[in-house]
Amino acid sequence: MTRSGPITILGIDPGLSCTGYGVIVVDGSTYRCLDFGGISPPPKATRAEKLMRIHEGLVDIIDKTHPDEVAIEDFIHGFVRAAVAIGEARAAAVLAASRAGLTVELYKPSEVKQWVTSYGRGSKDQVGMMVQSLLGMKEPAQPNDAADALAIALCHAMRRGAAAQIEAASR
Amino acid sequence: MTRSGPITILGIDPGLSCTGYGVIVVDGSTYRCLDFGGISPPPKATRAEKLMRIHEGLVDIIDKTHPDEVAIEDFIHGFVRAAVAIGEARAAAVLAASRAGLTVELYKPSEVKQWVTSYGRGSKDQVGMMVQSLLGMKEPAQPNDAADALAIALCHAMRRGAAAQIEAASR
Repeated sequence: MTRSGPITILGIDPGLSCTGYGVIVVDGSTYRCLDFGGISPPPKATRAEKLMRIHEGLVDIIDKTHPDEVAIEDFIHGFVRAAVAIGEARAAAVLAASRAGLTVELYKPSEVKQWVTSYGRGSKDQVGMMVQSLLGMKEPAQPNDAADALAIALCHAMRRGAAAQIEAASR
Repeated sequence: MTRSGPITILGIDPGLSCTGYGVIVVDGSTYRCLDFGGISPPPKATRAEKLMRIHEGLVDIIDKTHPDEVAIEDFIHGFVRAAVAIGEARAAAVLAASRAGLTVELYKPSEVKQWVTSYGRGSKDQVGMMVQSLLGMKEPAQPNDAADALAIALCHAMRRGAAAQIEAASR
């Protein structure tokens, strides 16, 4: 059964140079932004140091915001080296959630666009505007990776909301 | 200054379906195998579960064998999806070492072959035979990923041995 009452969702957009995070509170059909930002390891750090910085940064955010559920973007870049760098950062994010005992849902960029803009091929700008509007934010979240992370959290909230409605209707 | 006396090296060959590990003790120019094996998450586990299984398995091996240094293979597969899966497993390995306060050296497959067989393009079989011979093992290590992990540990041992000789000669 899907849990009722307000829940806190952490969305993560992983990247080795900047990992965006966004925390939202969902209460029925209302959404509120709790926290957002980007974790940017020093550019000259080794790959191991960057991964550790991202991992520990997310462990801290989980400790601070106590999310109930975690949603992470599952983006496969077309270029091998870029795809590997994103994959390594994604693993650092997945492990931060798993070590806290939280289950992780992975979403493809097309799914995020589909849920947030109700249109699979919505532009980046449309997604950003919907995030700002749904969360009642005066300005777009910065850096861009944080806005993307909030979109991932909203995508997860909408999908679980739809699942709860289907469950209720079938009862 | 390079540390003298026996040191313990953990070599890791990361993979999402099987991550090989090999632990060796190096004393001057003699090598001894302390432990080896493969961590194979259940094939039907989610990606998050597989990463956690690999990460926690390596944390346990580090706790048990107390390595001084860690060497991990830095293989970039030509196919994007395979490269991403290896990259995610590699991050799980890097974070296991980093969380234990150990620094990580990453080695490309060509470097491993070069150091272990003294010939950059040595075949897989040649590498396996050299590993068996250098460690005085009666049979090749199984699974293959464990033999590869021992080769990575030996590569690191040889490179640091050469560095120590250069350092001594320049004193």
